[in-house]
Amino acid sequence: MAVLSGSRRVRMTPFTQGVEAAGVKGYTVYNHMLLPTFFEDVVSDYHHLKNYVQVWDVACERQVSIKGPDALRLMRQMSPRDMSKMAADQCYYVPISDHNGGMLNDPIAIKLADDHYWLSIADGDLMQFALGLALGQGLDVEIGEPDVSPLAVQGPLADNLMARVFGDVVREIKFFRYKRLAFQGTEFVVARSGWSKQGGFEIYVDGSEHGMPLWNALFEAGKDLNVRAGCPNLIERIEGGLLSYGSDMTRDTTPIEAGLGKYCNSPDDYIGKSVIEAQKQNGPSKQLRPISISGAGDLPSPGMGWTVMSGSKQVGLIASATWSPDFETNVAIGMIDRDYWDAGTTLTVDTGAGTRSATVLDKFWI
Amino acid sequence: MAVLSGSRRVRMTPFTQGVEAAGVKGYTVYNHMLLPTFFEDVVSDYHHLKNYVQVWDVACERQVSIKGPDALRLMRQMSPRDMSKMAADQCYYVPISDHNGGMLNDPIAIKLADDHYWLSIADGDLMQFALGLALGQGLDVEIGEPDVSPLAVQGPLADNLMARVFGDVVREIKFFRYKRLAFQGTEFVVARSGWSKQGGFEIYVDGSEHGMPLWNALFEAGKDLNVRAGCPNLIERIEGGLLSYGSDMTRDTTPIEAGLGKYCNSPDDYIGKSVIEAQKQNGPSKQLRPISISGAGDLPSPGMGWTVMSGSKQVGLIASATWSPDFETNVAIGMIDRDYWDAGTTLTVDTGAGTRSATVLDKFWI
Repeated sequence: MAVLSGSRRVRMTPFTQGVEAAGVKGYTVYNHMLLPTFFEDVVSDYHHLKNYVQVWDVACERQVSIKGPDALRLMRQMSPRDMSKMAADQCYYVPISDHNGGMLNDPIAIKLADDHYWLSIADGDLMQFALGLALGQGLDVEIGEPDVSPLAVQGPLADNLMARVFGDVVREIKFFRYKRLAFQGTEFVVARSGWSKQGGFEIYVDGSEHGMPLWNALFEAGKDLNVRAGCPNLIERIEGGLLSYGSDMTRDTTPIEAGLGKYCNSPDDYIGKSVIEAQKQNGPSKQLRPISISGAGDLPSPGMGWTVMSGSKQVGLIASATWSPDFETNVAIGMIDRDYWDAGTTLTVDTGAGTRSATVLDKFWI
Repeated sequence: MAVLSGSRRVRMTPFTQGVEAAGVKGYTVYNHMLLPTFFEDVVSDYHHLKNYVQVWDVACERQVSIKGPDALRLMRQMSPRDMSKMAADQCYYVPISDHNGGMLNDPIAIKLADDHYWLSIADGDLMQFALGLALGQGLDVEIGEPDVSPLAVQGPLADNLMARVFGDVVREIKFFRYKRLAFQGTEFVVARSGWSKQGGFEIYVDGSEHGMPLWNALFEAGKDLNVRAGCPNLIERIEGGLLSYGSDMTRDTTPIEAGLGKYCNSPDDYIGKSVIEAQKQNGPSKQLRPISISGAGDLPSPGMGWTVMSGSKQVGLIASATWSPDFETNVAIGMIDRDYWDAGTTLTVDTGAGTRSATVLDKFWI
């Protein structure tokens, strides 16, 4: 693969200095910002993540700040989740759609105050959608991207490492809740969340100048825990069924098709509701499924996606697939047509380098 | 620099197969899509571009299609240019801003019909802004990203090459105008435009399946013209003062600060007008300028930008800079404070690898 050329447009993060010193070997670009993809190699990173603790530069999870008297009104328009029940210290996963139910992003909403929310976004300029909606209606709300850069601490030893830096109070943070905790005199939102199934936290580092001091403090505190620099891991995230907006779903996908119906419960007249509610009632015509693909660890990358066939008929698309050392199969996420999505259905996948048999499963691996 | 990891989210283009076969060595990511950055090396690519003809995969210039009875109404809200004078075959450079004048993108608008426009965008999801504005106001307009991928033909021999594939009629296309021309029975918008100062065309390839046939036809037809695969060239675009949204200007920049005042002449009440008109009247407090930096070709990349100093005072920022073999200086684009932007002003630049002297110029090099 070719090298990635740098520019101001493809932004470095407050942690890039640490990431480079740790020997990052691969990047992707996410929200116009560098996101590491592997350090030692994807398999070694994976085993380490499942056994120890990693510090992840996920500054690319940019925050869309929505603040002002009409903040909740705008959130209610965009969110398919019932915003009235959101607690003051809560984080909500909110798939956001257009008027046809087509997904525009799947951020984590963080309630900072009754009139102030952050949307911690997947790859895509959701800020522009929020801004357009607000300007189009003349809402009294400020929308911007603050200098806030999440740093994730993930892995089974995450609680131990975090307690050494932020105190034992971190152990009390519940899943998708946050506390405001101080590091060197500055308070940050610290949530129990993160894009792995190994447990851990996301620290919303407010002010780039705090980036490297916090990075260094975590590595200093975690020497005997075998802490390493890491990043979202392709294998682990497919095993756990963590969806990637832009890969597993796009604007051509509704939240129901993405299997996110449980997050669509708002009584408000949110954007896309009529389509989403109808699909909830009648069932979608296709939906994401865990797929096991035959063979050993010799699959190429799915690139723009592999077609899934039943006989000579295309019945789906797989955008995420890789070999799982722990489950000893090729783990995959595929969008499968309704008549073929039952667990146990056997299909074939055209990988571009040969055809493989594939089986629809009833649940992800972990 | 680390390698770029692939995924469906970082999209391949209809021309990626040709780009890879041509030996691309560097990529960036632009609108969630691969954009080549160099083939042989940036300097060799530069000399070739100025002497022959290149075919560029600029599929990442995605089209935001705005179609319907309210299309012009929405365009008038977004565009600082007077849309009433736009001819049926015309392309307009339109810097688009928020309500504070902060730039959101600087696309080329293409008028396809009275009720249908494309915005050929710089890096950023302007589709989301247009969609938000339309939904917020209940406009009768469809907004989407069609399967249209620009292919640029750039360089002094571009007319000759294009004439061989599309006929001599291409020679009649005026600057920033287009004709609909057929390739193998399918008509494409072919405009005299492109992100170089060497002359040439952009072909808006409508339908991915036409990508490689057209790519191959251009290379077949241009063998004796020394045609090569190329891409926007860092050196040539700085020499020519072609601005890069995200690098040279951001949402913190107004069109006036970017030196784009001549494109802000709309009599309509477009978004950001009050700020932009006031700056036009009073002059901005900072503005982009061509800057010559001392030394030989030993500068690092400006990364997130170099501070520009006058004595001990910061008076600007340089985000784009590189060595120019033809002009034998380091060419740069910098945002410079009003009191220091006069041509001839001598400043210093902190490159992170030493301080250099710099001079503000009155015009770009070409």
